[in-house]
Amino acid sequence: MQRAKIFKYGWQLLKSNCDGAAKQVTTSASSLRDHSVSHFSSQGPKSFGLLFDIDGVLLRGKTVIPGAKQCIRNLVDHNGKYKVPVVFVTNAGNCMRQTKAEQLSHVLDVEICPEQVMLSHSPLRIFTQFHKMRVLVSGQGPVMEVAENLGFQDVVTIDMLRDAYPLLDVIDHNRRPKDPSPPSKGLRPIDAIILFGEPIRWETNLQLIVDLLLTNGNPDNVWNSNQYPHIPVLACNMDLLWMAEAKNPRFGHGMFLVCLENLYKKVTGYELKYQALIGKPSVVTYNYAELLIRQQAERLGWTTPVKRLYAIGDNPMADIYGANLYNCYLQAARRTSTQMQATSGRGGSGSFEETLYEAPKMTSTEQDDMSLAHRPVEELPERCSSILVCTGVYSRGQQELPSDPTHTVTEQRIFHGHRDFRFDPTLTQPSFIVQDVKEAVELVFQQEACPLD
Amino acid sequence: MQRAKIFKYGWQLLKSNCDGAAKQVTTSASSLRDHSVSHFSSQGPKSFGLLFDIDGVLLRGKTVIPGAKQCIRNLVDHNGKYKVPVVFVTNAGNCMRQTKAEQLSHVLDVEICPEQVMLSHSPLRIFTQFHKMRVLVSGQGPVMEVAENLGFQDVVTIDMLRDAYPLLDVIDHNRRPKDPSPPSKGLRPIDAIILFGEPIRWETNLQLIVDLLLTNGNPDNVWNSNQYPHIPVLACNMDLLWMAEAKNPRFGHGMFLVCLENLYKKVTGYELKYQALIGKPSVVTYNYAELLIRQQAERLGWTTPVKRLYAIGDNPMADIYGANLYNCYLQAARRTSTQMQATSGRGGSGSFEETLYEAPKMTSTEQDDMSLAHRPVEELPERCSSILVCTGVYSRGQQELPSDPTHTVTEQRIFHGHRDFRFDPTLTQPSFIVQDVKEAVELVFQQEACPLD
Repeated sequence: MQRAKIFKYGWQLLKSNCDGAAKQVTTSASSLRDHSVSHFSSQGPKSFGLLFDIDGVLLRGKTVIPGAKQCIRNLVDHNGKYKVPVVFVTNAGNCMRQTKAEQLSHVLDVEICPEQVMLSHSPLRIFTQFHKMRVLVSGQGPVMEVAENLGFQDVVTIDMLRDAYPLLDVIDHNRRPKDPSPPSKGLRPIDAIILFGEPIRWETNLQLIVDLLLTNGNPDNVWNSNQYPHIPVLACNMDLLWMAEAKNPRFGHGMFLVCLENLYKKVTGYELKYQALIGKPSVVTYNYAELLIRQQAERLGWTTPVKRLYAIGDNPMADIYGANLYNCYLQAARRTSTQMQATSGRGGSGSFEETLYEAPKMTSTEQDDMSLAHRPVEELPERCSSILVCTGVYSRGQQELPSDPTHTVTEQRIFHGHRDFRFDPTLTQPSFIVQDVKEAVELVFQQEACPLD
Repeated sequence: MQRAKIFKYGWQLLKSNCDGAAKQVTTSASSLRDHSVSHFSSQGPKSFGLLFDIDGVLLRGKTVIPGAKQCIRNLVDHNGKYKVPVVFVTNAGNCMRQTKAEQLSHVLDVEICPEQVMLSHSPLRIFTQFHKMRVLVSGQGPVMEVAENLGFQDVVTIDMLRDAYPLLDVIDHNRRPKDPSPPSKGLRPIDAIILFGEPIRWETNLQLIVDLLLTNGNPDNVWNSNQYPHIPVLACNMDLLWMAEAKNPRFGHGMFLVCLENLYKKVTGYELKYQALIGKPSVVTYNYAELLIRQQAERLGWTTPVKRLYAIGDNPMADIYGANLYNCYLQAARRTSTQMQATSGRGGSGSFEETLYEAPKMTSTEQDDMSLAHRPVEELPERCSSILVCTGVYSRGQQELPSDPTHTVTEQRIFHGHRDFRFDPTLTQPSFIVQDVKEAVELVFQQEACPLD
């Protein structure tokens, strides 16, 4: 009973912190451009870091957004050294981060190293319990290389599966086997499925993944829809929509997941279950990004910990929701830690994870994310602010139109986040709204009372 | 008021007929193989026709099911003339019926003419109100040729749309335009969308179709999720699963429709609306098949109308459900006609269509199907019996296993029919269950007390 009370109290603390944060967020958002007074002291060394989203903030497709190049160049001193830790956090995942760093360096004309780039799948490095399993990977680009680089030791691609079981993928008439009974080479059963990002030929991946889920990873078995839960599924990048060069949003990996979830449910009657959902807005992603920020600060010779993070993005459901959810996590971790110290003398023994698992309004996926991402409180930043730009999915101009799809994103009727994330509309409210990335960076340096030039 | 009462009474007649049919169906199914006594007189000329499903009945993929070849050959006399009208009714639709007839003739070694083949899209010939519209067609194979052959005069393919708007389809990184701002040729707006069958590269078709639905057919417009209902969508072939050579069922066009419906709903919050759903189990399909049977009977020189149809299939949700639903339609049409004659002297003026539109338990799609398919009662057969074979989706042996996916098809928890078809479990119960197509044909000729040799 004592334990249960502590958990409940811990959750109330978490809730009150989130509510407080949301209120501050709304106030800040309404006082847009009122940046003349810094929120932070200019005394002492710099103590903040920047998280940049890429698509819709720096680029649209292959096109650099005006001002973005100069803005990033301003963050580097005349020796080519970054003035503050900078990490590029994207939900893209169909490439190696080395490749992404090279592409970004090229288009922005500033040197960006792989350690500054975080793709949606990057946190899979810490999911070591899956590294020795036989995993099927879904995505496009060098998926095998990406998986092995993350630590997976026994990787099977969709093409390898098609090759081993030539009768499974028959939707495209032209890719059906010529021989009606081709030899089935077979494969050792698959233990888990990793969804890196949107694949090509969705029909092939959807068919083969549903086959594995219904056969306990072995397509030689007969479909068994009662085998539930199915083998583990880990998904990176839940983005439903993103902005490329086209006028309207384009489909992201989140749309592929909507297809997979609904096909599985139509056939079996059960909900597809994710072992983990990685990428923005999951807490595990921000915690990993913060780890990269801290490593950079150390390389910059900073002796005091990074206290404040600023996350700049264009997508209310991914960038803003994620930064605010992470901020809730930071506040909860801090206050729960204080609470634990206060109650420990009275026989309390609850941990932060236990508090989170008691949280009444969190889905199991959110809880898993938070638990996995947990680190000692003293190493964590004090807060994470969210800055929304209007050059991507969100557009201030369009918001006034009744037909605006981005406007309805924050309405209860339509939820553009992932199925397994409870929708809290206050978390889509940014700390600040600015026009573009240039204004965003200027705002941060004003807030920190730190000269940008 | 008088009219409303007539409608209500008409619907009660329809219901009581369906219930009666279901009871008879159950009885017949339980008296399996008790065919020694014919249900029909052997006196007079032959008066029945056969509807054969193809996949799972005659073929599995490209492989002929044992006995099927001889069974069809037995239906042809020594002059090469069919003994009774025979129509091959398939939900496949990614080809011309000429091509399908040639393929079938080749593998079954019997001459089958195009007029004996009915593909899922064949009834689109009677949807003349769409023939002059500018339609986008989705599917694989010769979709342009198929559409033009059905009567459509202004047809746009997915490839033409991709070519006119090169920025829309960017999921496959390798198919993105090299030039970041390629010239957009544009197109006159699309008026309606025709979904023939499962396409390849589902991501492309899903993205472009959702683009059209959200832009009133013109991708130059900004997405407007409040524009509802969207432009008309007509879909052929709702089959969720079908049996090819693989041990387990393969994805059909119904799975593509599940994806489209759920993506549209995820983005807009609204249900995707179909102007028509064509192919088995829709009544419009069986009515069209019956028309082909009647035409064949005339060519055979039969002077009396075809009174009984036998539909042989492997899929409880498509073949059996469809034949039983059509049988309900036949009974209702007949009884409602009698009722109308009786009430016409008392001021009643309700038609069969009006009765159907008043039907409380039918979805609008089912009502549309029935209304479209309506023909004078005196031209309709007396009944349509359903015969289930165990060589395809349904397997009697597997049914006893608790894990059997086909078993659960008829359970309320899982519904493998289309979203817009109300699920009535009694309609999945066949008139007869037999092992294979050979037994099915023997059974029919026994029932009709007609020598097969």
